[in-house]
Amino acid sequence: MSTAAAETVVVGLGDRAYDILIGPGLLAGAGALVADRFPGARVAIVTDTNVARHHLPALTASLDAAGVGHATVTVEPGEKTKGFAGLEQAVDAVLAARMERGDLVLALGGGVVGDLAGFAAAVVRRGMRFVQVPTTLLAQVDSSVGGKTGINSRHGKNLVGSFHQPRLVLIDTNVLDTLPAREMRAGYAEVAKYGLIDRPDFFGWLEKSWRDVFAGGAARIRAVAESCRAKAQIVARDEFETGDRALLNLGHTFGHALEAATGYDGARLVHGEGVAIGMALAHRFSARMNLASHDDAARVEAHLRDVGLPWRLSDVPGGLPGADRLLEFIAQDKKVKRGALTFILTKGVGRAFVAGDVPASEVVLFLKEQLP
Amino acid sequence: MSTAAAETVVVGLGDRAYDILIGPGLLAGAGALVADRFPGARVAIVTDTNVARHHLPALTASLDAAGVGHATVTVEPGEKTKGFAGLEQAVDAVLAARMERGDLVLALGGGVVGDLAGFAAAVVRRGMRFVQVPTTLLAQVDSSVGGKTGINSRHGKNLVGSFHQPRLVLIDTNVLDTLPAREMRAGYAEVAKYGLIDRPDFFGWLEKSWRDVFAGGAARIRAVAESCRAKAQIVARDEFETGDRALLNLGHTFGHALEAATGYDGARLVHGEGVAIGMALAHRFSARMNLASHDDAARVEAHLRDVGLPWRLSDVPGGLPGADRLLEFIAQDKKVKRGALTFILTKGVGRAFVAGDVPASEVVLFLKEQLP
Repeated sequence: MSTAAAETVVVGLGDRAYDILIGPGLLAGAGALVADRFPGARVAIVTDTNVARHHLPALTASLDAAGVGHATVTVEPGEKTKGFAGLEQAVDAVLAARMERGDLVLALGGGVVGDLAGFAAAVVRRGMRFVQVPTTLLAQVDSSVGGKTGINSRHGKNLVGSFHQPRLVLIDTNVLDTLPAREMRAGYAEVAKYGLIDRPDFFGWLEKSWRDVFAGGAARIRAVAESCRAKAQIVARDEFETGDRALLNLGHTFGHALEAATGYDGARLVHGEGVAIGMALAHRFSARMNLASHDDAARVEAHLRDVGLPWRLSDVPGGLPGADRLLEFIAQDKKVKRGALTFILTKGVGRAFVAGDVPASEVVLFLKEQLP
Repeated sequence: MSTAAAETVVVGLGDRAYDILIGPGLLAGAGALVADRFPGARVAIVTDTNVARHHLPALTASLDAAGVGHATVTVEPGEKTKGFAGLEQAVDAVLAARMERGDLVLALGGGVVGDLAGFAAAVVRRGMRFVQVPTTLLAQVDSSVGGKTGINSRHGKNLVGSFHQPRLVLIDTNVLDTLPAREMRAGYAEVAKYGLIDRPDFFGWLEKSWRDVFAGGAARIRAVAESCRAKAQIVARDEFETGDRALLNLGHTFGHALEAATGYDGARLVHGEGVAIGMALAHRFSARMNLASHDDAARVEAHLRDVGLPWRLSDVPGGLPGADRLLEFIAQDKKVKRGALTFILTKGVGRAFVAGDVPASEVVLFLKEQLP
């Protein structure tokens, strides 16, 4: 049972600042950490049936050992849980467990559980304290920083929610050992993204060390910590997403369009895979616009291919619609202002920027070239 | 069509500060005010069928005249609308109208509409701008200040919600002319409350001028403005209700217990009536505890009686349970810590304070004396 974190990342948001503790085996120390940091608080755990099977016993044992009272809400895994019905279920269960404002909602799971539990924490009694224990690589390096919580509506994904910062994030890097390989790779796409946005040295290190990151140990801890630090720096500059935070969408405009074009069918394409292809396309498109070199685009493609991630449109199983239809999916995601789109483009590895005036016609031409 | 407010109350909450504009006929000037203060924004109106009949045409005509785009969500009147189903309906309608984060949700109605619309504004796209046009006296002097929004859960009232401050509140004092007399009186109980908390001169003025407040005109504007100012001062000291804001609960502990004991049946007792009896009881109980004079208690009772408000337990139609059962309702509302209750008591008119150590046994004895 370890409560010593190998790395601590401080998310500097003034009076909403919080620590991300990262290390192997932290789950077993969760009870002691909660008892130490939130004396007297009880814990409402929100998790899903898959994660509960792997990790809930270790968490509850640790809370019991530290004398921390707890109750558990177990939801169905999958995106469908992230709706009004799931929210009502989570909120009702937290209230049924007689949790007060000073008590904690603890998310044990991946992105769906984190978004849902965080939103429930934001609205029960107009705001309970929130702790995250992310159990996927994607959730560890993405959802654990930034305070975005929410659910989907029939009108689109993540359209209903709150900004509600956690009070503490515990990242146990060992829990990734039970993650399916494909999900691990998909999360890794977001790790690589931080290098590509503004950390060229980190990207260079990943090119050499990605096998160690997948294997576990010190390299994995370093990759997770560096990713959290990178995102924390951007979020601290722009908590409510009015400017720079858009950089985090590198690869996401193309990526979301591919997710939509494949009907959000995870069997064909999961989010991180869409982001991987999207990042490769963003670099190739930037090269085509004479913003970045073709060598840089090839370097990004090579790394994603090495890791086993899809990186080109022909990697999407089951085929894709034509370029014009893909542009419609892009336009649904972003507002098209007088034929111009906002994209995250790049001047090279680690030199991404927000481009607010990308001609839709250029994007269509480019997609036509890229389609198999 | 008037856009000149007779009174402006600034709610001083730093970067969440906003104006409350108060005056006769402001509804007809709403469009011009919105166009001036939120250029380019569209408006999602949330209202109920009753209020829509009286006031929606004037509001939409005013928005049309000012060239402000708008859509309307009309919900059923009544407390039942303030639940998860009502929230989903409001949120879906706002999204269906393709409102963006910079657009406005505008609540046209009483407390239920304001709480629901404000919560929808808080969560659609993780926060839209919110404007309130309260159409009951209670909503004008209570809900328009403080930023509390929310819905009920099966576990209790207002247990799910957000703190989400409006950007602007427009109080048209003329709309109260269509309010049923009983609802006007119930709202007046909260007006009197501000005098009793810490504004003895205001209470003295109300004792002389309450007929003018009910009649309309300058006295009504003054009463509404002074009430908003009083609440704004307390809220600015304690936005998130960790201390002084509890003073606003004067009369509410007894009042909530009476609402619960009458099954929240508005035919028997509405919220403001419960508060009226609760305030009279809080003063009488304070006198019994030798904190205030019996003359002050009698003065409060006399004023409520003059206005036509209920002021004693025997005024509740249909009878009440015994003192022990009433204490159970009180204890449901407040946490009982080792036999002691938190109450708002008083040293006299305008001298209320938070008492954290009121013996439950004294409350039961007192209720036994007061029951008919």
